[in-house]
Amino acid sequence: MTLPSILNLFGVAVFAVSGVLAAGRKNLDLLGVLVIAIVTAIGGGTLRDLLLDRHPIFWFREGEHLAVIVTAALLTLVYLRFRRLPERALVVADALGLAVFTISGTQVATAANHPAVVAVIMGVMTGVAGGVIRDVLTAEIPLIFRRGDLYATPAITGAALYLLLSSTALPRPLPTVFAVAAIVVLRLASIFWGLRLPAFAIPVEPDSKSYHE
Amino acid sequence: MTLPSILNLFGVAVFAVSGVLAAGRKNLDLLGVLVIAIVTAIGGGTLRDLLLDRHPIFWFREGEHLAVIVTAALLTLVYLRFRRLPERALVVADALGLAVFTISGTQVATAANHPAVVAVIMGVMTGVAGGVIRDVLTAEIPLIFRRGDLYATPAITGAALYLLLSSTALPRPLPTVFAVAAIVVLRLASIFWGLRLPAFAIPVEPDSKSYHE
Amino acid sequence: MTLPSILNLFGVAVFAVSGVLAAGRKNLDLLGVLVIAIVTAIGGGTLRDLLLDRHPIFWFREGEHLAVIVTAALLTLVYLRFRRLPERALVVADALGLAVFTISGTQVATAANHPAVVAVIMGVMTGVAGGVIRDVLTAEIPLIFRRGDLYATPAITGAALYLLLSSTALPRPLPTVFAVAAIVVLRLASIFWGLRLPAFAIPVEPDSKSYHE
Repeated sequence: MTLPSILNLFGVAVFAVSGVLAAGRKNLDLLGVLVIAIVTAIGGGTLRDLLLDRHPIFWFREGEHLAVIVTAALLTLVYLRFRRLPERALVVADALGLAVFTISGTQVATAANHPAVVAVIMGVMTGVAGGVIRDVLTAEIPLIFRRGDLYATPAITGAALYLLLSSTALPRPLPTVFAVAAIVVLRLASIFWGLRLPAFAIPVEPDSKSYHE
Repeated sequence: MTLPSILNLFGVAVFAVSGVLAAGRKNLDLLGVLVIAIVTAIGGGTLRDLLLDRHPIFWFREGEHLAVIVTAALLTLVYLRFRRLPERALVVADALGLAVFTISGTQVATAANHPAVVAVIMGVMTGVAGGVIRDVLTAEIPLIFRRGDLYATPAITGAALYLLLSSTALPRPLPTVFAVAAIVVLRLASIFWGLRLPAFAIPVEPDSKSYHE
Repeated sequence: MTLPSILNLFGVAVFAVSGVLAAGRKNLDLLGVLVIAIVTAIGGGTLRDLLLDRHPIFWFREGEHLAVIVTAALLTLVYLRFRRLPERALVVADALGLAVFTISGTQVATAANHPAVVAVIMGVMTGVAGGVIRDVLTAEIPLIFRRGDLYATPAITGAALYLLLSSTALPRPLPTVFAVAAIVVLRLASIFWGLRLPAFAIPVEPDSKSYHE
């Protein structure tokens, strides 16, 4: 099994858990929770495959993904019957999924010979898509935009770090390991310790449509 | 004309009606209403064709779809000039569209030799996409998530029932007919008579971002 | 450089500016703002290329787009350090992006020999997608639906005008110029002078789910 495949499987598992946690707040029934878990888990990779014209889409040709998603979702549901998960479980699962899919998207774009800047953007879109779909479907403000936490920054930093380390003599799985770790650490440092970049607030009136009234 | 084509045409018609009803609440002008009707009607089938790499997309190659959508939308608008539609018209049109596109997505995936579980998921995504796009565009909480009604459950049940019946000796249009009927009945039973599966509510604090403050 | 390429570059630049202006209200950090600017700028063209099965997607193969986006975004950010942009800057940038991408989508669909009605719809979807993605990601009600301004109407009118003028003896860049101008003028006339089509309001109760309670 190749490293990208393992990464992908791990990514769908943690995003499935994050989907269950997000859906669980919405009073959905069992199958509704499963649908959110599945869509969250496959969203990023599906967008990656569509944009790069890779068919069949990864979860069509590799059945183990759906098995992993459903297993991860059911285990989470069973766990939640007996214990509460701390609130931060959702953001940790989301951070892991973001990290794994960002690097996976970067790797696939690089393998298709796209230039570095395209690979970074593909990576960020792949990493962000699953969580955005989850948040849009559960009618939450996407995590990516809450209160100025770092979200895109860890992903961009990690994707760039991966490209940098890949061009060195570092042995094979290490660039991936370091880049994934960098994203998780930056993202969680932003959430739990308030790490920030300067924000660009532009003062405007709240409503933009009263010119003709 | 094949059964999947007829199903598809019927699906775009009812989703066009549901798009008009949803857009009608938003004070849009005539062409805005038409755009919502069109996007709602073609959303599910477009996602299906993109994911399965079927090009050209169905409404590119079969012009009658757009004719049916515009006709259905205009008839609905004319009707609404003279009579009010009961509130439940929207959920009934949505249930019909969900049923028809779920089975259509399942059929197309099966015809492309994908395994049963992929076919069910493709079916659900095809069935749900049009309505989700409609609700996101009209800035409503997607019907799929309101107050714990069954939405994914009827779709999954119907898609599984279709695959089951297709593997029996039942003559050709009957699996489709029964599966579509099952989805509509389950969905409407959930809305009007309160049919439910157990919900999975997870008690958490409403806001997830105050660790460092 | 061909006219559609120039149009596309101009479209991504103005949508990048509109993305910065929208993101600037949300207290995002520098890289978050860039991500919104990029996704807004490439959204419409990406959807166009996916639906028409044009691979690689335009911003994969033509690197200058990303350079233009990042430059436009950074210049906007620098400008905003020194001066406030008037509130209407966002709607003007959005109107220009809508106009340019609508005609670009119409042209590409026509070049692929799709019928007029498909070309118009492709045009409108291409023009609208970037702004809708921007508004969904920044958790705003999409501009396309605020208070009954004309949004789809200018796009549809411009796309139809383009097809009409293209079939005449008018020399080459003029149909594009007139159609883009028509969209911008109609859209801004709607925003600033209250130009309207009759709305189709359907009176219904606000909540649709209390049948069984």
